[in-house]
Amino acid sequence: MRDTPPMTEMHPGTLHLVGTGPGDPELLTLKAARLLGEVPVVAFPRSDRGGTMAHDIVQAHIGPAALLEPVEVPMLADRGAETQRALGIAYDAGAERIAGHLAAGRDVAYLCEGDPLFYGTAIYIAERLAGRYPIRVVPGITAFTAAAAAIPLPLVTGTAPLTVLAGTDPEAELAPQLEAPGAIVVMKVGRHFDRLRQLCIGAGRAEATWLCERVGHAGERIVPLAAAEPGPKPYFSLLLCAAVAGALR
Amino acid sequence: MRDTPPMTEMHPGTLHLVGTGPGDPELLTLKAARLLGEVPVVAFPRSDRGGTMAHDIVQAHIGPAALLEPVEVPMLADRGAETQRALGIAYDAGAERIAGHLAAGRDVAYLCEGDPLFYGTAIYIAERLAGRYPIRVVPGITAFTAAAAAIPLPLVTGTAPLTVLAGTDPEAELAPQLEAPGAIVVMKVGRHFDRLRQLCIGAGRAEATWLCERVGHAGERIVPLAAAEPGPKPYFSLLLCAAVAGALR
Repeated sequence: MRDTPPMTEMHPGTLHLVGTGPGDPELLTLKAARLLGEVPVVAFPRSDRGGTMAHDIVQAHIGPAALLEPVEVPMLADRGAETQRALGIAYDAGAERIAGHLAAGRDVAYLCEGDPLFYGTAIYIAERLAGRYPIRVVPGITAFTAAAAAIPLPLVTGTAPLTVLAGTDPEAELAPQLEAPGAIVVMKVGRHFDRLRQLCIGAGRAEATWLCERVGHAGERIVPLAAAEPGPKPYFSLLLCAAVAGALR
Repeated sequence: MRDTPPMTEMHPGTLHLVGTGPGDPELLTLKAARLLGEVPVVAFPRSDRGGTMAHDIVQAHIGPAALLEPVEVPMLADRGAETQRALGIAYDAGAERIAGHLAAGRDVAYLCEGDPLFYGTAIYIAERLAGRYPIRVVPGITAFTAAAAAIPLPLVTGTAPLTVLAGTDPEAELAPQLEAPGAIVVMKVGRHFDRLRQLCIGAGRAEATWLCERVGHAGERIVPLAAAEPGPKPYFSLLLCAAVAGALR
């Protein structure tokens, strides 16, 4: 006979990183839609301008009793040490708020545009909680496949490679990559557009390249490179450089 | 007053290339699920061994009155001229069967595992019908993001590049690509596994590389490279080489 009963062991909650896809609410997976109706807590990034894009995409699927937990993330244009420090503090604070729910046994869905593990900022939240709580991931449609679908533009077939690059990289890195065979996706085009257009022309890719602005969002615009006017583009713009074939039109 | 009324113009059907995702039926998008319940004809590849993988993934969502239209595609291991000829004949025949439905005004969904425009064989059907009929695409979850989610393994953050390569490529091409920075996805690992493992070790990537077999299907197995036994792997195996961080475990 025991003097005290054994403590009921608290079962920690699971953190689900949930990809919302690039913007069209119908590009959510069935798995994400089901999970969002089940979890007691839904967390998501909120910019210091109040934007909650990932939340807005999936809003219709969040259960009516779910607690909403915005994580404040400053949107800073430069990539300097000060920005990194501010982001680090924001992710620390967000991860600890989420940890509170997980420690109390509540599952949390953390929303991420596109796919969580493919350039997703959900990684910064999850790496602060890995090893402490179980982490599961629901993959999402990436912006580059959604952009190709909207044209529609075959990206790669057979054994051709596909490379995803950042438009913020210096010319010395980008130029040889654009000249290599296969398809290229250039992310973060934004204010680098004019420079990137020249690089695409120099690499002989002008004919098979498309500029994709605000994929899946209001104001989506997808045009052949030749039809795009010079000047800066929205931050989330992409360039798609197909491997060979033209658009399926 | 006219002698004869104007002919009612036949409105041609639309060809929808529909990504089914890599295998888990819950990784279908809401858009694909809706569309499959609406279209009068659902076409899909059927191997000469009778396999209809893309169909099997989405079976539950196909409308009860839909006509099923399998397209016979020979599964041939070599990539020689004879194989290309046999595949060309098969896609020609499949495209003409689908064209019959489109000409009669019936919309057709053509199923494709993963994403249709990212190494999808749906491209070979669609390029035979482009310009003749309207073509729309529903993107799908790619096998590499689903594999990363299953681990879970962050692939890339920030401005790191990601490159998708074919494991069938010669060593002289693969070796420098594996030594470049960023994340690497190697498709079509199959019988090339032992050679690819040596290349990953040589490139200093052994610690951050995972072997992913049959992602999303019965018999899925995802293990660190160090835990994989030598010898050939299933044809649809992938290697994921992360950019930096370890798994979220």
